[in-house]
Amino acid sequence: MNAQSTTPLSVDLGRRAYQIHIGDHLLDRPASYSGAVTGARVLIITNNVVAPLYLERVRAALAAYDADTLILPDGESHKNLATTHSIYDHLLHNGHGRDTTIVALGGGVLGDIAGFAAATYQRGIDFVQIPTTLLAQVDSSVGGKTGVNHALGKNMIGAFHQPTRVIADTSVLDTLPARELSAGLAEVIKYGLIRDADFLTWLEHNMPRLLRRETAALTTAIRRSCAIKAGIVAADERESSVRALLNLGHTYGHALETALGYGNWLHGEAVAAGMCMAADTSRRLGWIDAQDVTRTENLLRAAELPTAPPAALHRERIATLMRHDKKVRHDRLRLILLEAIGRACISSDYGSACEQTLAHYLPT
Amino acid sequence: MNAQSTTPLSVDLGRRAYQIHIGDHLLDRPASYSGAVTGARVLIITNNVVAPLYLERVRAALAAYDADTLILPDGESHKNLATTHSIYDHLLHNGHGRDTTIVALGGGVLGDIAGFAAATYQRGIDFVQIPTTLLAQVDSSVGGKTGVNHALGKNMIGAFHQPTRVIADTSVLDTLPARELSAGLAEVIKYGLIRDADFLTWLEHNMPRLLRRETAALTTAIRRSCAIKAGIVAADERESSVRALLNLGHTYGHALETALGYGNWLHGEAVAAGMCMAADTSRRLGWIDAQDVTRTENLLRAAELPTAPPAALHRERIATLMRHDKKVRHDRLRLILLEAIGRACISSDYGSACEQTLAHYLPT
Repeated sequence: MNAQSTTPLSVDLGRRAYQIHIGDHLLDRPASYSGAVTGARVLIITNNVVAPLYLERVRAALAAYDADTLILPDGESHKNLATTHSIYDHLLHNGHGRDTTIVALGGGVLGDIAGFAAATYQRGIDFVQIPTTLLAQVDSSVGGKTGVNHALGKNMIGAFHQPTRVIADTSVLDTLPARELSAGLAEVIKYGLIRDADFLTWLEHNMPRLLRRETAALTTAIRRSCAIKAGIVAADERESSVRALLNLGHTYGHALETALGYGNWLHGEAVAAGMCMAADTSRRLGWIDAQDVTRTENLLRAAELPTAPPAALHRERIATLMRHDKKVRHDRLRLILLEAIGRACISSDYGSACEQTLAHYLPT
Repeated sequence: MNAQSTTPLSVDLGRRAYQIHIGDHLLDRPASYSGAVTGARVLIITNNVVAPLYLERVRAALAAYDADTLILPDGESHKNLATTHSIYDHLLHNGHGRDTTIVALGGGVLGDIAGFAAATYQRGIDFVQIPTTLLAQVDSSVGGKTGVNHALGKNMIGAFHQPTRVIADTSVLDTLPARELSAGLAEVIKYGLIRDADFLTWLEHNMPRLLRRETAALTTAIRRSCAIKAGIVAADERESSVRALLNLGHTYGHALETALGYGNWLHGEAVAAGMCMAADTSRRLGWIDAQDVTRTENLLRAAELPTAPPAALHRERIATLMRHDKKVRHDRLRLILLEAIGRACISSDYGSACEQTLAHYLPT
């Protein structure tokens, strides 16, 4: 595998195709935005944590445009319709038309909110994403999912809306807390597990470089992750079939996240433990062997991630939460499992293996 | 032109293609919904004016599904985000998932709101439209525009979202007030003017039958109107080029509507006067002759529509409102004008003809 490339990665979605630019100090370069901002006006939407770090650099790169800024409060608790309305109000009070491009500067939550506003302002305007976490760079910036939470459920209100450009700048990861870097690496490892055994091997060899935040290693990991996700999304833009493979570890993981209370474990941490559980279930079915499970656990551990749920969680609570997962169809929970390292599948034909996994990790 | 056909009209939008069923007493037939409702659950959204007239008929036709109902207050003043939230709340409180189909039973306002909720609930769910006004049958049910108003502008929040079926039932027009029937006929006449001279001739011969609400005549008029709009929309789904032709009479018309205060003239009435003004501008440019203008006026008059703005309106007020129309690009207002009866064009090259038209109709 080549260490890196400066060629943008294309996400092939026909008329809505777009490029992901990946590399060092991209957000400072006017060229990064070229072709993705077509009108004269830009609205940069960011939050109060990211703004002091990167806003002026982005504003300088966009000096050729009439750019104004909206700074939202940081945090998932603000990912709601009230915040969306504050964006509409800002757009209308400042006379923004259909030609305005929204530039979303922040992590996954910020991108989801700003993307949803872009999807629904005047029936959809252009938007550019500058994800500032590794998780957002490899996951939420590819696929076109936008939306906000409702009191009765996460991501219940939203739309599919593709960005016109994603700028994944590795330099912004320098300020990312270590725990968040690891949480992003959980999703990177996921791509290897579901689709690319060679990439998994590369990750095993390069994990120390990634934890040291070496630009070349990060660029390779982000590029390969985005390419895998982009390939899956292009085949299944509206999430009716293969796109479900991206949820490896998520059915177990969401249940853990909910049981622990949102905010205690990061999403990536719950997914890491969930992937170990999915690997365990796959082994019980005889699809992969014990060595594959150990390999999965070792790589996640090397990325400083948990490899099992807290044993104090109650088994029946997790089982109940899993049954309420929205991937339940026709009363039989479908799980994403591994047929091999590098090959995931969707299955509802796992007999009692799921129960055995829960009993193994959660004794009570 | 054949009087009618029972074959559904196909709107060719690739993966989002759908059928329009046009004819008498279609909303009572389970077959009308077949193939368009794919899950087990349905939410019928209607309003307090339409519900007493048609809700039980629709519920009976959907007896095979688990259907519940949400009745919204009638009127454009409720076409806002608060009403949209009440739909989200109902969907979530009643546990509706991605497999639910929304059935929108009502006029254009109801369809816009319910369609926007469908576009944004869990990133888009299916919806079926049963338009209950002639205007909604020939205009707003084709093209996928959904949305609501903001205090600072009409239709500022919205999305493109195609229905899975449109059921245009001519029997529901029996209860439509005469003035609303005429307002719908303004848009029907518009289709002839912009795209189909033969259809315009047919309308000249059949206007009395349409005003008597004869099923066969209505079916032909709705079918031909939807076919013309569907052809234009298929060529330009996101409104970047030829779709603008559908705005014949609307730049003048919107200015009249605003100057008169919303609710005083119906949209179709303002468009009728606006089309006469656009014909006048086209004649001043030498593109059509005086006889074509007279023909346009006579047909609109036969449909019991106004053919000129109230002379008491002030010219400068209308000119100012036109300049604020959102079709203004690069400071030069583009108008939809007629090159011939049955052939519209977009032009910003009309010299002083627009001013002359305003001076002709509005002396002060």
